[in-house]
Amino acid sequence: MAKIKNKKLRVIPLGGLDEIGKNCTVLECGNDIVIIDCGMGFPEDGMLGVDTVVPDFTYLVDNKDKIKGLLLTHGHEDHIGAVPHLLQKINVPVYGTKLTLGILQRKLEECELGFKPELNVIKIGEIITLGDFEAEFIHVNHSIADAAALAIKTPVGMVIHSGDFKIDSTPIDEQIIDLTRFGELGRQGVKLFLCESTNVERPGFTPSEKKVGESLVRYFEEYRKKRIIITTFSSNVHRVQQIIDISIKHNRHVAILGRSMVNAVSAAVQYGYIKIPDDTLIDQSEINNYPPDKVTIISTGSQGEPMSALHRMTFDSKNRFELSSSDLVIISASAIPGNEKLVGNIINALYKRQVTVLTDSQAIVHVSGHACADEIKILHALVKPQYFMPVHGETRHLYAHKELALQMGMKPCNIFISEVGRVLEIDSHGAQFNGTVPSGSVMIDGSDTTDIGNVVITDRQKLSQEGIVFVSATIDTEYSEVISGPEIVSRGFIHENENAALIAEIKNTARNAMIETLNSGSLDFALIRTNVKNALSDLIRIKTKRKPIIITIIMGI
Amino acid sequence: MAKIKNKKLRVIPLGGLDEIGKNCTVLECGNDIVIIDCGMGFPEDGMLGVDTVVPDFTYLVDNKDKIKGLLLTHGHEDHIGAVPHLLQKINVPVYGTKLTLGILQRKLEECELGFKPELNVIKIGEIITLGDFEAEFIHVNHSIADAAALAIKTPVGMVIHSGDFKIDSTPIDEQIIDLTRFGELGRQGVKLFLCESTNVERPGFTPSEKKVGESLVRYFEEYRKKRIIITTFSSNVHRVQQIIDISIKHNRHVAILGRSMVNAVSAAVQYGYIKIPDDTLIDQSEINNYPPDKVTIISTGSQGEPMSALHRMTFDSKNRFELSSSDLVIISASAIPGNEKLVGNIINALYKRQVTVLTDSQAIVHVSGHACADEIKILHALVKPQYFMPVHGETRHLYAHKELALQMGMKPCNIFISEVGRVLEIDSHGAQFNGTVPSGSVMIDGSDTTDIGNVVITDRQKLSQEGIVFVSATIDTEYSEVISGPEIVSRGFIHENENAALIAEIKNTARNAMIETLNSGSLDFALIRTNVKNALSDLIRIKTKRKPIIITIIMGI
Repeated sequence: MAKIKNKKLRVIPLGGLDEIGKNCTVLECGNDIVIIDCGMGFPEDGMLGVDTVVPDFTYLVDNKDKIKGLLLTHGHEDHIGAVPHLLQKINVPVYGTKLTLGILQRKLEECELGFKPELNVIKIGEIITLGDFEAEFIHVNHSIADAAALAIKTPVGMVIHSGDFKIDSTPIDEQIIDLTRFGELGRQGVKLFLCESTNVERPGFTPSEKKVGESLVRYFEEYRKKRIIITTFSSNVHRVQQIIDISIKHNRHVAILGRSMVNAVSAAVQYGYIKIPDDTLIDQSEINNYPPDKVTIISTGSQGEPMSALHRMTFDSKNRFELSSSDLVIISASAIPGNEKLVGNIINALYKRQVTVLTDSQAIVHVSGHACADEIKILHALVKPQYFMPVHGETRHLYAHKELALQMGMKPCNIFISEVGRVLEIDSHGAQFNGTVPSGSVMIDGSDTTDIGNVVITDRQKLSQEGIVFVSATIDTEYSEVISGPEIVSRGFIHENENAALIAEIKNTARNAMIETLNSGSLDFALIRTNVKNALSDLIRIKTKRKPIIITIIMGI
Repeated sequence: MAKIKNKKLRVIPLGGLDEIGKNCTVLECGNDIVIIDCGMGFPEDGMLGVDTVVPDFTYLVDNKDKIKGLLLTHGHEDHIGAVPHLLQKINVPVYGTKLTLGILQRKLEECELGFKPELNVIKIGEIITLGDFEAEFIHVNHSIADAAALAIKTPVGMVIHSGDFKIDSTPIDEQIIDLTRFGELGRQGVKLFLCESTNVERPGFTPSEKKVGESLVRYFEEYRKKRIIITTFSSNVHRVQQIIDISIKHNRHVAILGRSMVNAVSAAVQYGYIKIPDDTLIDQSEINNYPPDKVTIISTGSQGEPMSALHRMTFDSKNRFELSSSDLVIISASAIPGNEKLVGNIINALYKRQVTVLTDSQAIVHVSGHACADEIKILHALVKPQYFMPVHGETRHLYAHKELALQMGMKPCNIFISEVGRVLEIDSHGAQFNGTVPSGSVMIDGSDTTDIGNVVITDRQKLSQEGIVFVSATIDTEYSEVISGPEIVSRGFIHENENAALIAEIKNTARNAMIETLNSGSLDFALIRTNVKNALSDLIRIKTKRKPIIITIIMGI
């Protein structure tokens, strides 16, 4: 389609701002939409029982006929985790590199879409046309293989999205981020740069992934008599490769533990991103057949997750492996904000078992996958955008990134700190915010893809703090008489057996409130319920200073 | 009482190990017990609705006639917070320095003890006799004034408890920790050293409190046109004094915001630990009468607490003070583990309001009150104990502290990593662990001082994750007929109005299960309940993949 003058580009983040995860950005121009990434987020503290959080897709559903494609920068959950939820609502062609789509494929197999999704494997450098857009994938370094930035030619000019990146001069796969391509595009002129902000507050450079390998070599040597258990993010293919390579040099067999680690490694092997010689891997059932110095275990649990392999090894006394003084546990990861205590609990428990523990606070056993400030500056210097929008960060990071861009010489009026759902419009005259679209977080509990809703969450918060008291009685409406009950059942309030006197008092108070209301001549069940509730609230507040939810059911015959 | 040969000293931690807070250590010899500190802890993530956690005092109640006194090292909550709970069970004479007991006094006034507690103000250097024990308070530096270590002469030898300490060569009150006294006691011979472990993993020295003042001077200058809001720990008397002094130099009035800050400052003023010239303080109602550059606000909320003054200023749009681009917020504290997200949320919200924010990651606006490794080594070198027990730390810190003691030349067999409730026995022959006493955590919800119990907490966890479904019905036992109900009520499960079809299905399924059981000839209510529960569990699992608690009440007439 020919480019039409004065076309407007609309840039709409549906997630990824002021939160961890849920990365999703919409580019819209005329009748065409492309989506960049579609990630899930993690429930906040108060979101009780919520498994995942995904973007509100209302705007995409309302404009589904415009959508030309979903472009995925890499295979991390915060960039692809909500794809199944989007596809359950609308069928959209998906584009990504081989490993990214390989990981997505396995996720999609777990849910019943009812149709075969269109997954298009894209090679780095290949250009795909999506309506008025042309998209090119650019190789970047990150903590997962096959990660890409995106250069998207739009009717108003070039848009570059950094994806998640770092500049690793000595990467494990020997492919340094394609700085040249960023520079070429910058020289041709870039209208808008969307750049990730995760580590923008940290000065300097993120160390190379190879640094971790060098540390591990040293610790494998130092602790050569111990069984070595390493936990890391399962998607960190290069980390896993390094651990396997070093283990082989030390004549150690390798066992892979934990569902997500087994899945990730087998996907990486299948697509050629991890190479494991025959006879290296052993099944977990075989671990105890080998002496400690002949085994490396690569396991899930780097975030202290209660269902992970490391958690079970640490806390479950019935677990097949009892960790002990002959074990070294290396936590090759840093705690994601909010997980510090979970990880700390595991470390403490390991010390109690006399296990030797190495964490990233004592040794370089982990490096970040995200660029620090000086790396980000390099990308800004190469891309030299006209307009800039920081993405992928909490608000503090977005403002720190704005500060960095100012230092790089950008004018404040060309920097746009956006919000989820906010529309940035760019045309030949300039760029400005203009309105919002429906947006927000959808909380997912269980397999359902619908929002669990705030009412349910608020109830759960009340239940979790105070518990619930349930009162049930049957009333003979002819004689205005309580003929059965009241029965009292509580959960999360007090231990009923140890507080039998209070339970009896609750029962009496409920009965008296019913009888009083009936004797006053009223058969209004709503009034009876209200009176019971008020009487019990008063009693319980005086006796315990607590405020459980009180539910009364009155049945009439 | 004359010292009897072969007397045994029993050292029993009732808290403070493998957890934050709840510091409490028992020394027992013959018929005498002294208690060192009596702190509260903070609820762990899963302790839903729990307000505070205190030590299990069973052992102290069982041995109350032996208790000669409770010695308090300083006035922080994790050292004095459980005193009201202990005194509600047993009346014990309390000993501490002036500020410590002043803070405690105010806490005790809030609860109804029914008797006047015996609070004995002790001067540094004074020696008090408590049965077979003689206790001396030694001045130390810490993030609260009037902090002390304890030297306790026992029949088996000298015991030193470091309390919480740092070595501050330039403290605000010009009183450096009494290293000389530690050295004298060390020269005379110390049998057992109990030393805090908080910062043992950090190499080097903790900076002086004065460093914070120097930073603040710089920022008051740099942001002299802005209103300055500083949040810190309310008990950090010296920090508050520095902020007031610098504010006066800049002709700023000072407002104190938040209940605990107001209480702490007025206690410190009353006991002479903070000096504020007349006309410096203004009421919060007057803040808006002054231009930004004439006001400093000292406020609670450094941990992001939802009820704190800073939280209200940040999030409550109806708050008297709207924070904006003319404000500088200095977070003069570090996040206690577990509070990182709460603090992060405030910082993000402040950035959104265009407020300038300074945290301890960008500037020295906070220093720890705890000694780092090299300071701890100095105390070890001075005290030169025969036996050593690390206290006040998570397990990882206790083991790191053991490592430090080994580096200082101690033998492994003389270092005792204890556990809550574990008894270390010391006599003239040696020292060894010998048995345990009742111990643990008591969870407090509301005003009650009794344990809320694990059953209730487990129920709250289930409720918070999945919600609850109630089924209630009345059965005519003569005709084996359901004559009323089943009524269905749920909380925290699904939005009932939006899922009317599912609720109807639940009702039908419950009714069918009842009728089927009745038709099979059974009038066993327990069996009916079980059948209803099983039928509903299956239905709900298939329809929603969730597992709410299901409660069935069957009433008979």
